[in-house]
Amino acid sequence: MTPNWIAADWGTSNARFWAIGGDGTVLGERTSDKGMGTLDPSEFEGVLVDVCADWLETANTVVACGMVGSRQGWVEAPYQTAPCSVCPATMVTAPVTRVGLTVHVIPGIRQMNPADVMRGEETQIAGFLAQNPGWDGVICLPGTHTKWVHVSADEVVSFQTCMTGEMFALLTQHSVLRHSIAKGGWDDAEFADAMSHTLSRPEALAGRLFSLRAAQLVNDTDTVILRARLSGLLIGAELAAAKPYWLGREIALIGADAVSMPYVAGLKMQGVPVLRGDAKDMTLAGIKAAHALLETA
Amino acid sequence: MTPNWIAADWGTSNARFWAIGGDGTVLGERTSDKGMGTLDPSEFEGVLVDVCADWLETANTVVACGMVGSRQGWVEAPYQTAPCSVCPATMVTAPVTRVGLTVHVIPGIRQMNPADVMRGEETQIAGFLAQNPGWDGVICLPGTHTKWVHVSADEVVSFQTCMTGEMFALLTQHSVLRHSIAKGGWDDAEFADAMSHTLSRPEALAGRLFSLRAAQLVNDTDTVILRARLSGLLIGAELAAAKPYWLGREIALIGADAVSMPYVAGLKMQGVPVLRGDAKDMTLAGIKAAHALLETA
Repeated sequence: MTPNWIAADWGTSNARFWAIGGDGTVLGERTSDKGMGTLDPSEFEGVLVDVCADWLETANTVVACGMVGSRQGWVEAPYQTAPCSVCPATMVTAPVTRVGLTVHVIPGIRQMNPADVMRGEETQIAGFLAQNPGWDGVICLPGTHTKWVHVSADEVVSFQTCMTGEMFALLTQHSVLRHSIAKGGWDDAEFADAMSHTLSRPEALAGRLFSLRAAQLVNDTDTVILRARLSGLLIGAELAAAKPYWLGREIALIGADAVSMPYVAGLKMQGVPVLRGDAKDMTLAGIKAAHALLETA
Repeated sequence: MTPNWIAADWGTSNARFWAIGGDGTVLGERTSDKGMGTLDPSEFEGVLVDVCADWLETANTVVACGMVGSRQGWVEAPYQTAPCSVCPATMVTAPVTRVGLTVHVIPGIRQMNPADVMRGEETQIAGFLAQNPGWDGVICLPGTHTKWVHVSADEVVSFQTCMTGEMFALLTQHSVLRHSIAKGGWDDAEFADAMSHTLSRPEALAGRLFSLRAAQLVNDTDTVILRARLSGLLIGAELAAAKPYWLGREIALIGADAVSMPYVAGLKMQGVPVLRGDAKDMTLAGIKAAHALLETA
């Protein structure tokens, strides 16, 4: 079978491409480290052609999601405004030089008040809904910027971003805490204790961060324990902020295992049922859903 | 008049030296960018001799405070443990090669539970008490790591560190927010609004940070407004954490104008009377108090 079209998840740091056959079968998958962050608008087409040259012999259509559609990307795909359908009303076509090639870019979604944006997650949500028709509830997409999204009647009703992942990276890599936090390792009890503490007393957070450093200086506390404790403090703060999204609901959590783990642990501690989905699978399913819209248009 | 001794405030990034006459008069003041962070233990004496060569012709005694006494400093001056006197019970002598020179290092203060440490601020507190004998209350020392210190009967009773200054620097320099926050400028009303919001609803903080970035993308909000808003969110979170320290009290705030300004504004909004002190003056007064202890010993 030959590739019929190409699906692309083109983010800030990396890009992933799939060759899709006429019946929707995935014929191949490739990645590139040429993310949006490293490219000028004029360079995207070259990367696509380099990585997918043989596929492009038969595939003339590309459907792409992610930061490729941001203002600094290949072409700006203006945000849809929530509440809105999870499936894109329109896609934007990127400028290309190769004859016959058409690249469709899926728009992100914005929310006016409180101001918020997503770009890429909307496609994972569309993929989840394609696989779970009629789902009504809250989807959490953990990552550098975790999204909590209320979905109802195939629409994104409202959402909230917490930059917990980025905060953890900043504190462990750039702050005074970097001396005291292990690069890996985990401790369930310490995570649970710290998470419960900030969830029940979110006002204490600002006073507890430096205490991690001090605990090492004063009590020689193990740096693996401090890693779990920092994660607990930050996830607790996020769960406190996102409480209206998860309280009394079932949560669909879409993300890789490593980044999802503390969320799963935290939500289970609060008695919240968690349904898991794989981010890559959902992305591909969402791009396929957008491609199907093209065919029916 | 010739220098009788030398006072030194030797921090992580910088050092400041004063030549002191026999009657306590300041005869000269010099600074160096050779902070503890850039020096091996063996290099401190050379910096001192380079910067203060002429003073050392008559001054044989140095009294130093700050990170010079940390484990990575010239010599480790072990922490006193709170509750403890603000005046050091003992100072540690640094190893030197120059004949006749004695360098005394003031110890920091630690707290066992919750774990916390200070090194340098104890000297400012001692200076404040030397100038305000019998003061009983709370001293706030804003900075990269702001300290809230309960002082009573010339003792440090308890204290809490909030790394708000470092967090502001991390978020404005290294996070996704860096694109959206002006390098300077201010807006009183935006600061006040954001501060009140996190002070009254600290659980919302984690959801409000990314919203600063989104506000620029979605509403094209001015980056000066976003700067004031970020400061307000973080100071509000700190005031929420430090509430037991300031509620219903008068606060002595020791710090330079720029770093003190948002604290003064925030505390005044809560109806808290604020007494101001200059950090440099208090440091020198504290070193003088430690020097006086040497003379009476």
